[in-house]
Amino acid sequence: MKFYDCSTAPSPKRVRMFIAEKGLDIPTVEINLREQQQLTPEFLEVNPHATVPVLELDDGARLVTTAGCRAYLESAHPEPPLMGRTPLERGQVADLISRIETDALGAVAECLRNTAKAMKDRGLTGPVNYAQIPELGARGRARAERFFPQLDRLIGDKPYLVGDVFTAADIDAFIFVGFVKWIKVDIPADCRNVARWMESVSSRRSAGV
Amino acid sequence: MKFYDCSTAPSPKRVRMFIAEKGLDIPTVEINLREQQQLTPEFLEVNPHATVPVLELDDGARLVTTAGCRAYLESAHPEPPLMGRTPLERGQVADLISRIETDALGAVAECLRNTAKAMKDRGLTGPVNYAQIPELGARGRARAERFFPQLDRLIGDKPYLVGDVFTAADIDAFIFVGFVKWIKVDIPADCRNVARWMESVSSRRSAGV
Repeated sequence: MKFYDCSTAPSPKRVRMFIAEKGLDIPTVEINLREQQQLTPEFLEVNPHATVPVLELDDGARLVTTAGCRAYLESAHPEPPLMGRTPLERGQVADLISRIETDALGAVAECLRNTAKAMKDRGLTGPVNYAQIPELGARGRARAERFFPQLDRLIGDKPYLVGDVFTAADIDAFIFVGFVKWIKVDIPADCRNVARWMESVSSRRSAGV
Repeated sequence: MKFYDCSTAPSPKRVRMFIAEKGLDIPTVEINLREQQQLTPEFLEVNPHATVPVLELDDGARLVTTAGCRAYLESAHPEPPLMGRTPLERGQVADLISRIETDALGAVAECLRNTAKAMKDRGLTGPVNYAQIPELGARGRARAERFFPQLDRLIGDKPYLVGDVFTAADIDAFIFVGFVKWIKVDIPADCRNVARWMESVSSRRSAGV
């Protein structure tokens, strides 16, 4: 296998942590998004959608989204399970990931892509340019801030989002808490469950990859 | 089980077709989105995110996103598999669903929610109101139109998106082709693979649910 990564970006880290939690060691190709390497003809051959992560299998087949890479890895390397152990847990993990993508990671990206000078005309990922829409800056920030009390309730007094087992939903929420700092938002003081849970997740070996 | 549905909306149909393909018969509660029944105190007790689909299990646990409902059903009722049969297929189906959500269903919703008079202040789903942003109307339409040649290439000369087996990715692409008509966009004449595949998917019993 081969993993197309970008060490500074949140999306590939969602898969990089997943790989680390599985105990796998996959050779990595670094794609520098700040230098727009994802838009070079060479990389567009690898993934016409111009995004990382990409997981290339030994037979050359490629998975080109976070969801695709992780669904493959969970099925090919089931231990330890990161997408839930029972039907209910699998549903809950998928629910949480969907929620975090839309209300949290998507909100930060919406703010950042529509306000950062370095992202002029890069309002959306992909090979096509889209103009920035300034209203989305404010909307994305408001949504990201609003996610914290929700996350605090979702964690509650449990060790992890789904209960006593660490899952991909914890990976995604952990990456949100790091990503949201890019738009100068931090954990609100009253979100004590988030703070406690962050301390626990940050101490995992996979958090540092 | 109990399924909270809305017979006129695209998101719950993504699960309704999935249920039909599994051959399951689950009692349904209709939530009329046009009358904003999702925002009533009664429904917010069921799902604070104010969206359908919701799948309620016999023990009262609830899955509240399309992804959550389908992950549960695929795991509890594995036959026939709709999320891929092998690790590679599972990765491919997840890739396709992610692509269709972002570039196709999400694009139509972006256009519709930011232009329809009936959706004033309903720029996003959920319990919080967000003002419409007119530029998103044009951007969503352009993105939806741009998805058709991509879909045509993805189908190619195969019977279904992943090859010879019908999956949840076909359900989602089929629902996109219906949903995009709401913004007066239809299959372009040169997308012959889409037209052929639509004829085949439309003839399935599940397409009519």
